[in-house]
Amino acid sequence: MNGQVSPFTPPSYADITAAAERLAATAVCTPLLENAALNDAVGGRILLKAETLQRTGSFKFRGAYNFISQLDGGQRRRGVVAYSSGNHAQGVAAAAALLGAPATIVMPTDAPSIKLDNTRALGATVVTYDRHSEPREEIAAQLATESGATLVPPYDHPWTIAGQGTVGLEIAAQAAMIGAMPDALVVCCGGGGLTAGIATVFAEAAPTTGIYTAEPRDFDDTAQSLATGRLVTNQPGGNSICDALLAPTPGALTFSINNRLVTGGVSVSDDDVRRAMLFAWQSLKLVVEPGGAVALAAVLSGAVDCGDRVIAVVLSGANIDAAVFREVLKDAEGR
Amino acid sequence: MNGQVSPFTPPSYADITAAAERLAATAVCTPLLENAALNDAVGGRILLKAETLQRTGSFKFRGAYNFISQLDGGQRRRGVVAYSSGNHAQGVAAAAALLGAPATIVMPTDAPSIKLDNTRALGATVVTYDRHSEPREEIAAQLATESGATLVPPYDHPWTIAGQGTVGLEIAAQAAMIGAMPDALVVCCGGGGLTAGIATVFAEAAPTTGIYTAEPRDFDDTAQSLATGRLVTNQPGGNSICDALLAPTPGALTFSINNRLVTGGVSVSDDDVRRAMLFAWQSLKLVVEPGGAVALAAVLSGAVDCGDRVIAVVLSGANIDAAVFREVLKDAEGR
Repeated sequence: MNGQVSPFTPPSYADITAAAERLAATAVCTPLLENAALNDAVGGRILLKAETLQRTGSFKFRGAYNFISQLDGGQRRRGVVAYSSGNHAQGVAAAAALLGAPATIVMPTDAPSIKLDNTRALGATVVTYDRHSEPREEIAAQLATESGATLVPPYDHPWTIAGQGTVGLEIAAQAAMIGAMPDALVVCCGGGGLTAGIATVFAEAAPTTGIYTAEPRDFDDTAQSLATGRLVTNQPGGNSICDALLAPTPGALTFSINNRLVTGGVSVSDDDVRRAMLFAWQSLKLVVEPGGAVALAAVLSGAVDCGDRVIAVVLSGANIDAAVFREVLKDAEGR
Repeated sequence: MNGQVSPFTPPSYADITAAAERLAATAVCTPLLENAALNDAVGGRILLKAETLQRTGSFKFRGAYNFISQLDGGQRRRGVVAYSSGNHAQGVAAAAALLGAPATIVMPTDAPSIKLDNTRALGATVVTYDRHSEPREEIAAQLATESGATLVPPYDHPWTIAGQGTVGLEIAAQAAMIGAMPDALVVCCGGGGLTAGIATVFAEAAPTTGIYTAEPRDFDDTAQSLATGRLVTNQPGGNSICDALLAPTPGALTFSINNRLVTGGVSVSDDDVRRAMLFAWQSLKLVVEPGGAVALAAVLSGAVDCGDRVIAVVLSGANIDAAVFREVLKDAEGR
């Protein structure tokens, strides 16, 4: 999945509108929110795409549902397999349950408890592995081979990317409705599927809008890859509270799209992320998980300049353990 | 303000649509959200009106702005005064700042810090008083008399009620757009202004929709008053974490409206409220303060039956101190 050349063709704008039709009855059309305190804080106009309010608490449901709904009856009966740090896990589990496919998900033993619990509660079988020593792709591939199940790729597949791209369709439509097409978009980026889908939409719907990825500082493989024009892998030993964004390198297919359509990448520190999560709780009244807050952190920290501009920011996920959230709020009291 | 007969006439539906026009450029049209986990939990279809996402984090901005915008230039220059446990305080402070009126707000010394801090940050002068021994209405009236400022009533005035009623206009329009007009509405209730405004709208827009108030158990003065048909005052010595809903008795004007238009009142325990706040954090990904969560608590606890019905629930506010929120999350870990 992470090789230099993808066997797949990038999804087209039409593939993404087709995905939106598949998703219409089940996915939430999440609101595009605006907040006076945030606008004041950054000196621009920020439009927040709250995918935190999506089914299963992240955008991942979109790609998973778009993928599994294209499997035929026999494939669905044999089931689906996925590997995920937790949000794709829940997205696949929920989509599989709705579409009548048994799901087996390979998750790291140290994934947030809420992600493990929710995935099981959605009816999936969870197989855990050690993130530091075992190759999750191989475990999942073996499970799929043994059972005849279909692997649902977390980002590097046109069906997955098309599903995530429906976020972009909604942003474009909602921004048009309020007469405020963004000068730029900032998207939380792990493997790059959400970015690739949104960038594909905006290349057609509003080609002058700049597209920026936001990543944790030690996991800025997409920013580095965009800067050099080739796939860069993160240095080993990096660390971040953004459990959802620890992919080692961009996907081959996602990068082939993003390298063409994305303006640039920025990165933020874990402290920037904690401050953004606290701001979201205190002023936006929204729960956001670390990996879902990196784009907000990018505008609040000044990594993306917002002065007198309209910037759309994706809040991509909100599945976080209570203990971790309590620590973030504790930071608040110290300030 | 709390006498048996109000000198004011109830606002009409047209007064509320006029308020909506005044508010169009400044208030947030908050989303009407739906959540699969919540629907599953209660066995019905719940539409959440997220006034937590309103400017200043509660619906109170609407009434305050509608009121102050009807003052003439001289009145605005002489300023406005209000008394409030904190959400009306912030609403008045924000509206006054936007409309160029100096604001003085009388608040209890033990109001949540976030409410005191935000009110000051919005440019208002805060005067604190002891909630247990000093009559806030008299302090505010004296301040108004001394300075020539205008008192902005928290609920018992047609301009305030009309502003809050715009929440009802939005619910009706948003519900119609998704083809799901509610069988019933559940509204968090303190003095009754929000309920009165929403009930006035639904009496015209969807008269078969039931309207229910939700209150903390020790402060169910509206439920008692509705049951007996006359103004009932809460027993002294009651206690609740719902700092926004501690009004001793319904307003004369609001009750004259609610007694005519409201179906009934329910009450919930503080534990019900804490569980609802935790559910909102964990599954809805929304921050809700205790007083803003009583209507959600009413549906989750079964105080309002949701089986196979469409129920709209107002989440009315989200201003809560981090220490209190951390305690609610701590409860989570024990479960």
